[in-house]
Amino acid sequence: MALIESLAALSLATVSAEGAVATKTLVFKPKTAKTATPVPVLVFALQSTQTPSPLVAQAASVKEPRLAKDDLVQEFFAVSAKEVSIANLNKDLAGKIKIVIDQNIVDADESTVLELSTESAKASLPATTIKAFLESTGIELIPVDFSAAPVVPAPGAGAGAASASKGAKDAKKEAFKKEKEAAKIEGAQLIGITVDKAKDFSSWYSQVCVKSEMLDYYDVSGCYILRPNSYHVWEQIQDWFNFRIKKLGVKNSYFPMFVSQRVLEKEKDHIEGFAPEVAWVTKAGNSELDEHIAIRPTSETVMYPYYAKWIRSHRDLPLKLNQWNSVVRWEFKHPQPFLRTREFLWQEGHTAHLLKEEADLEVQQILDLYAGIYEELLAVPVVKGKKTENEKFAGGDYTTTCEGFIAATGRGIQGATSHHLGTNFSKMFDISVENPLGSDKPKVFAFQNSWGLSTRVIGVMVMTHSDNKGLVLPPRVSQYQVCVMPVGLNSKTSDEQKKVINDGAEKVEKRLKDAGVRVTGDYRENITTGWKFADWELKGLPVRLEYGPKDAEKDQVTAVRRDDGSKYVVKLSELETRIPEILEEMQEGLLSKARKDFDEHRVTVEEWKDFVPTLNKKNVIVAPWCGVAECEDDIKDSSAKKDNGEEEEVDEKAPSMGAKSLCIPYEQPPFKKNQKCVKCDLEAKYWCMFGRSY
Amino acid sequence: MALIESLAALSLATVSAEGAVATKTLVFKPKTAKTATPVPVLVFALQSTQTPSPLVAQAASVKEPRLAKDDLVQEFFAVSAKEVSIANLNKDLAGKIKIVIDQNIVDADESTVLELSTESAKASLPATTIKAFLESTGIELIPVDFSAAPVVPAPGAGAGAASASKGAKDAKKEAFKKEKEAAKIEGAQLIGITVDKAKDFSSWYSQVCVKSEMLDYYDVSGCYILRPNSYHVWEQIQDWFNFRIKKLGVKNSYFPMFVSQRVLEKEKDHIEGFAPEVAWVTKAGNSELDEHIAIRPTSETVMYPYYAKWIRSHRDLPLKLNQWNSVVRWEFKHPQPFLRTREFLWQEGHTAHLLKEEADLEVQQILDLYAGIYEELLAVPVVKGKKTENEKFAGGDYTTTCEGFIAATGRGIQGATSHHLGTNFSKMFDISVENPLGSDKPKVFAFQNSWGLSTRVIGVMVMTHSDNKGLVLPPRVSQYQVCVMPVGLNSKTSDEQKKVINDGAEKVEKRLKDAGVRVTGDYRENITTGWKFADWELKGLPVRLEYGPKDAEKDQVTAVRRDDGSKYVVKLSELETRIPEILEEMQEGLLSKARKDFDEHRVTVEEWKDFVPTLNKKNVIVAPWCGVAECEDDIKDSSAKKDNGEEEEVDEKAPSMGAKSLCIPYEQPPFKKNQKCVKCDLEAKYWCMFGRSY
Repeated sequence: MALIESLAALSLATVSAEGAVATKTLVFKPKTAKTATPVPVLVFALQSTQTPSPLVAQAASVKEPRLAKDDLVQEFFAVSAKEVSIANLNKDLAGKIKIVIDQNIVDADESTVLELSTESAKASLPATTIKAFLESTGIELIPVDFSAAPVVPAPGAGAGAASASKGAKDAKKEAFKKEKEAAKIEGAQLIGITVDKAKDFSSWYSQVCVKSEMLDYYDVSGCYILRPNSYHVWEQIQDWFNFRIKKLGVKNSYFPMFVSQRVLEKEKDHIEGFAPEVAWVTKAGNSELDEHIAIRPTSETVMYPYYAKWIRSHRDLPLKLNQWNSVVRWEFKHPQPFLRTREFLWQEGHTAHLLKEEADLEVQQILDLYAGIYEELLAVPVVKGKKTENEKFAGGDYTTTCEGFIAATGRGIQGATSHHLGTNFSKMFDISVENPLGSDKPKVFAFQNSWGLSTRVIGVMVMTHSDNKGLVLPPRVSQYQVCVMPVGLNSKTSDEQKKVINDGAEKVEKRLKDAGVRVTGDYRENITTGWKFADWELKGLPVRLEYGPKDAEKDQVTAVRRDDGSKYVVKLSELETRIPEILEEMQEGLLSKARKDFDEHRVTVEEWKDFVPTLNKKNVIVAPWCGVAECEDDIKDSSAKKDNGEEEEVDEKAPSMGAKSLCIPYEQPPFKKNQKCVKCDLEAKYWCMFGRSY
Repeated sequence: MALIESLAALSLATVSAEGAVATKTLVFKPKTAKTATPVPVLVFALQSTQTPSPLVAQAASVKEPRLAKDDLVQEFFAVSAKEVSIANLNKDLAGKIKIVIDQNIVDADESTVLELSTESAKASLPATTIKAFLESTGIELIPVDFSAAPVVPAPGAGAGAASASKGAKDAKKEAFKKEKEAAKIEGAQLIGITVDKAKDFSSWYSQVCVKSEMLDYYDVSGCYILRPNSYHVWEQIQDWFNFRIKKLGVKNSYFPMFVSQRVLEKEKDHIEGFAPEVAWVTKAGNSELDEHIAIRPTSETVMYPYYAKWIRSHRDLPLKLNQWNSVVRWEFKHPQPFLRTREFLWQEGHTAHLLKEEADLEVQQILDLYAGIYEELLAVPVVKGKKTENEKFAGGDYTTTCEGFIAATGRGIQGATSHHLGTNFSKMFDISVENPLGSDKPKVFAFQNSWGLSTRVIGVMVMTHSDNKGLVLPPRVSQYQVCVMPVGLNSKTSDEQKKVINDGAEKVEKRLKDAGVRVTGDYRENITTGWKFADWELKGLPVRLEYGPKDAEKDQVTAVRRDDGSKYVVKLSELETRIPEILEEMQEGLLSKARKDFDEHRVTVEEWKDFVPTLNKKNVIVAPWCGVAECEDDIKDSSAKKDNGEEEEVDEKAPSMGAKSLCIPYEQPPFKKNQKCVKCDLEAKYWCMFGRSY
């Protein structure tokens, strides 16, 4: 992670498609007097170069260098030893460390591409770029020809040192060649995902997001760039949702991103939750502002004073406004693409109604639309329900929610929430009208709702469907649904035959475009078909259309689905009908697979003894519950990993996190008689869904 | 302006529809020792109440109060005497001023609505709200019954004082009655625009923006709320433009709003123009940030480092990204709705190309789209052309522009610009690829364009079409194109007849909706038809459809166009075809009227002696010009109003601003032989458009 972030900051390269030569970065700590500050030696060499410590010692003029431990690496490079790379270098380190650099790298020519790697990330860059960067840091660079240098065997240097001495210029060239060959063979994998979804979910997720070109890490921590591959998903969601909320009479608008300190802090209770995360503008140009100005973390305090102003009579109700904007919450927790970002895109709807019934109805209508975005567009199943008192939006009367599930981690994830605020805010902001029954009756406060859905939905979609080949995108939201690729062409193919195939493929592309399919074509010639397939799989293309000499002969194309690899032979005469069908089949396939996963991992538990073991099997739980807040706290507490817990709770593999209530699902099967709460002795009131969660 | 802004800050009312009683706010300066700070007395009274200064002196215990001059009013209330109202009061004034309040206002009951007015604005508020506000300021309030109080005639009190003494309770009631009647008669005008477009354009504009519900003033100065009536226009523009740029291969994306100080200041030349206006985030929650973070004033430095990273080979070109976002430029000049705002919405396209020709072509394609937004959607004619070297975007090679014209002020206005950046930025950011001709050839820097269009377009549209009745919206962009209104119903109409008319109107509404017309209906019963008409005219509804007993009889509706009031009788059988036609006729009518205005006020001038007089007649000028930057400066300088200028330049009515070059129009009529520059002795190179401008 640190590597990728640092690279982003350096504006360096993305992972290269062509053969790159592997390198390694090692940090050594020389023997240092206790009172002195150590000067670590960083060794940057080809993976294939042996770098025995005596040579390092000799070159850097230090005593007894040993591989540095995590704390030292952390201190100097702000990452663990496993994650360190030259991307962690910066000018502040000049004078504080030394760099020993492999002569092979110094000698590398312009065409050489080097691969940097840490445990969680890889990136390939031209050697010249890397060298220029190293020089720009101002850190002392010490070139060493490890293969040529005379080795003074030292105690503890061992086999590595011995084998290093056999090298020469020839060996160096050999090493290059080998590396390059290895890279070529594994070409497709080099650009792909290098971490297993099942084994290291977090690194896998980060790689999928970046390598699929959904998103890139940005110079300002916690902020990310939404590239067209993800922004298109957001646009599809916007269109779908706008169309439907406008039918409900909601209108779009735009309120300023700024809130004055005075106004923001007016509603102490409301702001309390956001205060630690508010970003403050205090300066414009060189002038200090008289009053500090906040960037909206949400827009209640921005909008409601104007609702009070605009709503003068019951005829001004309902007022239903929505805005698509970005909000800023300067969280200090570890950021995560789409899921936890300091700036994020969302829509926030804020409505005011004369009657509670109207407001209640709208809360449900919006929740249904949110569920529709997940299920119909993103093919992600959700469970709709109500939040418990503990988990609801503090300012409101009740909160409804769509809850998703990430099968790979067994954790629940809050999808989107639709709140009924009652008259809590309308009383604070005096959003009121004369009583329609007569001015002698008390004035009436508006019943308000607010509801929001953010780009987090994209993260949930990525986590749900994607695999070790990369991104999987549901056809309804993907930028391209289909890519036509000429196949079966090789060096023996005549130019004439090539032209027939390319022209045929272009015709297929044109016909699909006219039929309203989001289609593109890949006619790149310098790369292999296999590499193309892998590249498009990485980027989540739903259906690849292969068109080769055999297809041309038989007036057909071969369609291959991204999610399960199933192949369809499609007659050209049926192109316009079959391709949309295949896309829809894939869309449905994704949803039903994900739904099966969720259904199988949403387990009914009635007795506490089964609760934590079930949870630890990557499930969420539906359990009978008393509805008492303290009992909910107790469940959370008791399902967290503790040193002194009951036996079944001390499970090494379980995350330390306790199970939160996710929602009280709307679907409530009947209870058996005298059903007790799963945790306490009270009678159960609801089935409640519990789980570890994001 | 100040009034409206202050009211916005107070979350007070918008202008009321019903009869309101006029008030006045006067500031008196008492005789004060030179060494002492004066304590002004603010008098707040009904317009009809005489408030002689001796009574003020007596009530406030001050000596010889005189109407205060501008400097004192400015010092205490931050506005001029003409603009002061009680909306300018705040807690900081407690202890520093006194308020004398008319007993009539103190006694006003709950149903009384008071009208506050300053020279440029009016607003009506319930008396109770006003009184609560006055009390909340903590300023000393001194109620005075001017009509009942015994008057001690004083030198200089004059006739006003004498006439004040005739009042009594009866007179007070009489005054109320008169005010209310006057208000009722002018009911329709009270909610409408109170300033003449031709006489006070700036106040007129501000009133149109606010009263039409396009926009509202916001608590943070320079920021405005875009209400649905204007945001809908923006959405129409987005849809239109997105559809067309996507065809050109441009993709939408989203980059973070933040830029680190280090990155922003990396390109010194680029940032220089923006630096004084950059808003800085320095704090998050209570933590000071280690590095200050800017809010983007534009996104070159945000995006281009990533362009350098993503563009690895000529196959990655062209890269064409666009984003719809908001940017912040903390200008300290006087803000103006839509035209100069501290946060504004825009789109910014940034593209990189392998070939200059490709980039050049795109610059023109985008400029044509911008002209299309103005002419096809907003019915605003523009002149396309190139900016002079003086006026082009400093970072680019050349700038193309659409220039509009505000007939009411005779000023030009820059519509939108499309820049070719050459390789200036690609060299700074190293956006380069290996030469496609071979790696031995020098690497190739990308040719870049950038282009942007902001919500300023909405302001230009408002200024162009709207009139003294309020907003005029072109049908293609208006939220509602048509509103159906039952007419001809009165207290004598039977319930049955009412139902027939209302049902009929609803049927018309339904049919138009099904035909894809953006239609609504106004079935409000407690207000008069005349008031409804005025209300919809104020809000810019393109076509009003009247449906009354006569229409029902004849199976017809009566359509009335907003722009010229022309009436059309439409047979119900032709509803779905005729209404869209009428809308299109209006759209074309608006454009041709505006084009006529622009054409008539774009005057060819060949001799300098005619230049300033022509300019002063609210024209822009097309003149032969030598193309020399210094000559351009000279033209600007010489056309500005100066005390010591030539005779024709000393024109009291001319604005002091000089004429800038607006563009070198693409349309270049042939020159006569040896055509000289309009200003200097050099030969003319182009026809150039000059004008005073926004």
